[in-house]
Amino acid sequence: MVRQTPASTAPVFPGATPIDLPRPYLLFLGDADDTTFLKTGLGLRDWAPGLCVAEYRCDGARASLGLPSMTPVEAYAAGARALVLAAASIGGAIRPGWIPHLVAALEAGLDIVSGAHDRLADEPRLRKTAEAFGRRLIDIRTPPPGLPIATGQRRTGKRLLTVGTDCALGKKYTALALAAAFRARGLAADFRATGQTGIMIAGSGIPIDAVIGDFTAGAAEILSPDADPDHWDVIEGQGSIFHPSYAGVSLGLLHGSQPDMLVLCHAHGRERIVGLPDYPVPSIGEAVALTLQLARLTNAAVRCAGVSLNTAGLSPAEAAMLTERCADQWGMPVADPMRPGPAFEGLVDACLG
Amino acid sequence: MVRQTPASTAPVFPGATPIDLPRPYLLFLGDADDTTFLKTGLGLRDWAPGLCVAEYRCDGARASLGLPSMTPVEAYAAGARALVLAAASIGGAIRPGWIPHLVAALEAGLDIVSGAHDRLADEPRLRKTAEAFGRRLIDIRTPPPGLPIATGQRRTGKRLLTVGTDCALGKKYTALALAAAFRARGLAADFRATGQTGIMIAGSGIPIDAVIGDFTAGAAEILSPDADPDHWDVIEGQGSIFHPSYAGVSLGLLHGSQPDMLVLCHAHGRERIVGLPDYPVPSIGEAVALTLQLARLTNAAVRCAGVSLNTAGLSPAEAAMLTERCADQWGMPVADPMRPGPAFEGLVDACLG
Repeated sequence: MVRQTPASTAPVFPGATPIDLPRPYLLFLGDADDTTFLKTGLGLRDWAPGLCVAEYRCDGARASLGLPSMTPVEAYAAGARALVLAAASIGGAIRPGWIPHLVAALEAGLDIVSGAHDRLADEPRLRKTAEAFGRRLIDIRTPPPGLPIATGQRRTGKRLLTVGTDCALGKKYTALALAAAFRARGLAADFRATGQTGIMIAGSGIPIDAVIGDFTAGAAEILSPDADPDHWDVIEGQGSIFHPSYAGVSLGLLHGSQPDMLVLCHAHGRERIVGLPDYPVPSIGEAVALTLQLARLTNAAVRCAGVSLNTAGLSPAEAAMLTERCADQWGMPVADPMRPGPAFEGLVDACLG
Repeated sequence: MVRQTPASTAPVFPGATPIDLPRPYLLFLGDADDTTFLKTGLGLRDWAPGLCVAEYRCDGARASLGLPSMTPVEAYAAGARALVLAAASIGGAIRPGWIPHLVAALEAGLDIVSGAHDRLADEPRLRKTAEAFGRRLIDIRTPPPGLPIATGQRRTGKRLLTVGTDCALGKKYTALALAAAFRARGLAADFRATGQTGIMIAGSGIPIDAVIGDFTAGAAEILSPDADPDHWDVIEGQGSIFHPSYAGVSLGLLHGSQPDMLVLCHAHGRERIVGLPDYPVPSIGEAVALTLQLARLTNAAVRCAGVSLNTAGLSPAEAAMLTERCADQWGMPVADPMRPGPAFEGLVDACLG
């Protein structure tokens, strides 16, 4: 990148801010008959129950998240300010049968929040209704405008970033669990979201993998701005620096986040990068060493607190034995954040130590 | 990135191809009075003389690249098929005074190629004229549609990537000079462009820093597709893995390029990253070691041929002494590709050895 004259090549608006969502939410479950396609809804219910006023579905659909069932008018009266598309469809489409329900939500006073691949405003009925009623159609796959080029300047406050040996093994849930644990200990802590579900849970954030490459680190910088010296930003990691498709995004997020502390996320038993059988998952030692080396560029004092180990599928006894054995083997705290207990509290201690 | 079900989150069109420009060119110099703002034009004249039919300027402008001066009608008759905006303006704007000349070019049968920040089609007179005459308005800051997610699969043929200790120190010119030297030795070699000027010089390429982060490595993969076993793709590097703003783009390009050979580009005397005085330029040893380590993810056999040293400002004798001294110090071939001679031929030998 020829950046001798940055002002002439890229507009920089230091005032750019993360996406900020209207809330709380009415969760729209579409025409789902079970919770298979409700990953977003499950995440919201489990991690942001205070934001979930009610659920709403197409006539005849049978799936439920166990929330009160309300119409958009009822949900607005109960405080809801946005309808969230909580169901995924194949291909990320907005299904035609959903449109009348979304129009009804706009008419009832709700904005619409979507992580679908289709853009809400490309649907004429939604666009016209939103314009007529002055509502917002918010696609959280679309990054906020005016993201800056990263400056590399240090910011005040403390930062933790979850990193991974692969994609899809618990970086979001680890960050959510750590932020909750920090708050439970009386600390000021914010979860900083970098993916769609995370942004809905937090009510704000930046979809970091949808940002143009030159601005990835800059987006990460504005995601965790200057804060009080004792405040923790717990940042949702993305991808892996060992992933041949996504390592660039992971590195930009690492550099822009300037983490003081890393937690390495790993899935027990996963030996190959998901979908890329030619690529082995790195060893824990290799992953910690290289991630720390790269992270030192923007924060020389960075440390790794330990490993978040995804033990899904194991019994509680098996998981406890495994995490203990791994902690011995790797010489650092190891815990599955989905299983509260002493191991996880030990990982939290290490993060704060 | 949650990629458990890629098909539902990102469209993949394996048929995406790099930008391909109509050529040869009529170079439009705008209202420039000297060559300060003609960096693109100078690069084209020096590196792609066979593509430069003529130059064309606003009335009263005084700058020249020394090419024949022609009107669009004359240039079309002489074979030109595109007018290239060869002048840069502050802020990357398309200046109002240029528009009549660009309209005349469209009317004369030429497409228009621009690397400006403003989009050509956002100018109504250009859009209308292009539509009326069936011409193309090509913004080479805009990546081609449908870029794939990287697969990490090895491709046939040989690849060399220029990498750097910073931005703006000669990665493009090094790649151009090496590709030319390979061809001078009778080898099949293509320069693969990743930035605006490079794309104009090559007539094709992908503006890698304008690609959405998730697709950076995938774009690099389609930029240097499968080729004959003895064919060399010499790929223009971008940024630096040591640059806190752009390292992610550099890493995605590195992984997707799968280089067999690296040439590290460095500027003599530069001790700080341009524009970021808190960030030191890495040592050559550190840069080679970390770049090779990261590159091994997608090509375990990668090697570093040597250092391309930018010695601008030194006398020929000083430059020769410096490159010799650096070669001793770093233990590998060192040459300034802008100064042909035995040192550069030695670097070429190392690339091919």
